[in-house]
Amino acid sequence: MKIEPRTLKGFRDFLPKEARKRSYVLDILKKVFESYGFEPLETPALEYEEILAGKYGQEGDKLMYRFIDNGDRKVAMRYDQTVPLARVVAQYQNELPIPFKRYQIQNVWRAENTQRGRYREFLQVDVDAVGSYSLLTDAEIISIAIKSLEKLGFKNFKITINDRANFVGIDPSAILTIDKLKKIGKEGVLKELKDKGLPTSSLDEILNKQINDKLKTISDVLKDKRVIFDSSLARGLDYYTGLIFEVGVEGYDVGSIAGGGRYDDLVGMFAGRQIPAVGFAFGFDRLIEAMETLNLFPSELYTTKVLVAFENSELQKKALKIANELRDKKINSEVYPEDVNLEKQLKYADKKQIPYVVIINDKGFMMKDMGKRTQEELNLEQIVEKLK
Amino acid sequence: MKIEPRTLKGFRDFLPKEARKRSYVLDILKKVFESYGFEPLETPALEYEEILAGKYGQEGDKLMYRFIDNGDRKVAMRYDQTVPLARVVAQYQNELPIPFKRYQIQNVWRAENTQRGRYREFLQVDVDAVGSYSLLTDAEIISIAIKSLEKLGFKNFKITINDRANFVGIDPSAILTIDKLKKIGKEGVLKELKDKGLPTSSLDEILNKQINDKLKTISDVLKDKRVIFDSSLARGLDYYTGLIFEVGVEGYDVGSIAGGGRYDDLVGMFAGRQIPAVGFAFGFDRLIEAMETLNLFPSELYTTKVLVAFENSELQKKALKIANELRDKKINSEVYPEDVNLEKQLKYADKKQIPYVVIINDKGFMMKDMGKRTQEELNLEQIVEKLK
Repeated sequence: MKIEPRTLKGFRDFLPKEARKRSYVLDILKKVFESYGFEPLETPALEYEEILAGKYGQEGDKLMYRFIDNGDRKVAMRYDQTVPLARVVAQYQNELPIPFKRYQIQNVWRAENTQRGRYREFLQVDVDAVGSYSLLTDAEIISIAIKSLEKLGFKNFKITINDRANFVGIDPSAILTIDKLKKIGKEGVLKELKDKGLPTSSLDEILNKQINDKLKTISDVLKDKRVIFDSSLARGLDYYTGLIFEVGVEGYDVGSIAGGGRYDDLVGMFAGRQIPAVGFAFGFDRLIEAMETLNLFPSELYTTKVLVAFENSELQKKALKIANELRDKKINSEVYPEDVNLEKQLKYADKKQIPYVVIINDKGFMMKDMGKRTQEELNLEQIVEKLK
Repeated sequence: MKIEPRTLKGFRDFLPKEARKRSYVLDILKKVFESYGFEPLETPALEYEEILAGKYGQEGDKLMYRFIDNGDRKVAMRYDQTVPLARVVAQYQNELPIPFKRYQIQNVWRAENTQRGRYREFLQVDVDAVGSYSLLTDAEIISIAIKSLEKLGFKNFKITINDRANFVGIDPSAILTIDKLKKIGKEGVLKELKDKGLPTSSLDEILNKQINDKLKTISDVLKDKRVIFDSSLARGLDYYTGLIFEVGVEGYDVGSIAGGGRYDDLVGMFAGRQIPAVGFAFGFDRLIEAMETLNLFPSELYTTKVLVAFENSELQKKALKIANELRDKKINSEVYPEDVNLEKQLKYADKKQIPYVVIINDKGFMMKDMGKRTQEELNLEQIVEKLK
């Protein structure tokens, strides 16, 4: 029986070209997170269903991957990284330093309608500090978002901030409408409020709000002009209790690429007491898309820097030796393993996007720049110098 | 209702202390793999059941996590990384460079009996080259294993090699017995062969085998005294077709920490033709255990290098500024976010295993070495110098 090689809808293979991009971004992000003392946490793909069920509203319960395992246990696949964080905080309360500053970068699974361009398996990048009410932590979280964007190469971005306190007394349904202000404009918001039978005055009420003491304190610590108060920013999730913020990037208008805030009533769910928390998450697929749109990936995002090619089969062993020497000098290099002609070796380099080829011939070395399509005779020392 | 925070049997949380170790090892391994031109591949956690079913024998079908998803599809969780590799090779045959040299580092799930010290979710680290029959590729795979071990700090290890061809004509059940030679000794093997009603002569037949031309060629390329021919090495898996090898480490006798070989009849299963392949895998949990046993982790495996502490609350803002300056110099640093006394800050540093604390007082800076329990007055320049 021939089985067709295919993947499930909403699930993706990441071939090297894509996987390289992803790890390029993740390496930078991890370094930034760790520079602020945030540490990695990993939790299992499967949890007891009771840990996750009922934590994400009706939609979550519907979209969650759940099944009965071989031992008749009801289990569910990781749906986000916040509920597992809450479990970890309760389960290991005596072992964890407080504040517990962790980042978590793992896949989550949601049986979403893929027609909306959503995936059923996608990477979440979460950064959260648990256990402190201090506004310095709020500022630190925003600071990490800013530093991450800078290190990834983003130039024109802004962080809009608001305080959930500004929405106290406003109908939740009105908040959802006002949150669309940037998308549908003032007219659109007013119309939708009317359609919903809600007082249109709530829009003005919100727009007239001024920055409060908390947000001022956070702003003062950050001293960054890209951090802007926006009283209409609401963010959909209703678990936020204080600061909320979103990152918008010029030239990429699909939506915000990161967002977060303070949520003091969520992480304590298993511990049975209030545990404050503030954090943010990157929309990783959007982040990659934004970087592609803005051309922020290095033009040479390769694994192998140089293919050491041989002009005839007698020289293949020498090529292996040279490749080893280059590797010792931290230059990623490889040799085509079969005894084939030069043309085939060059084709391989091209297909694998290897930027340089050193051709060994009976006289010496020829170095080819595969991008520029130029070549020059060099000795080994010069080659190393050039490739370093 | 109070829900007990707990994890499923065989599933683990990796708190920062453990997660740091894991990423220390993985960072080193990825660098080695990439230095030889091996590139990352990621495949989904869930596959159509028909892709995985029947590929791992009866035991695999029993231990595989399988269920019906919300769309009534039969799905299964990743059980290894070789079958997904075979699918990828068939699905994207025109896009992939040949040889396709990939590494894959993802979790797999098996409903194992956890009493045998096995986990139900564990990381696999696979390195494989697909599409070449060349013995140079066999040698390269062993070379990567050696380089990985060296970079991780292993000193006394050996690679035993054999060729599956040496077992042609020997009863498969006898092979399994002879494979236990190191564990149960010659006497034990002879007894078990007798018990099974198999000719005891097969042991001598195997032990008298000499290194053949293929293995000699591989050895000649490697020129490494730690690579040793062992005619009794069989490796359990029956899909190998040529070279087989295992890595043993002195001082860690739980078992081999890595192994692999050539398997030319497996990767083509979806493509419907023979596709040669050679590769190896680390037993990641064993690797970590071996490194712990042999004390190969750096003594200071921290995330935050320095906590910038403040002697009184007026100095907290200054601490934030200093921490930022240190970060700019690539020194991971943090400040305790709440206004607490010095003792509490030091306790936090201790619990988080932060190796240094810089205490800001009204006169200047005091730097504490948390391991040595020493302290000295330094200026900022000296602190940076010391921490770099």
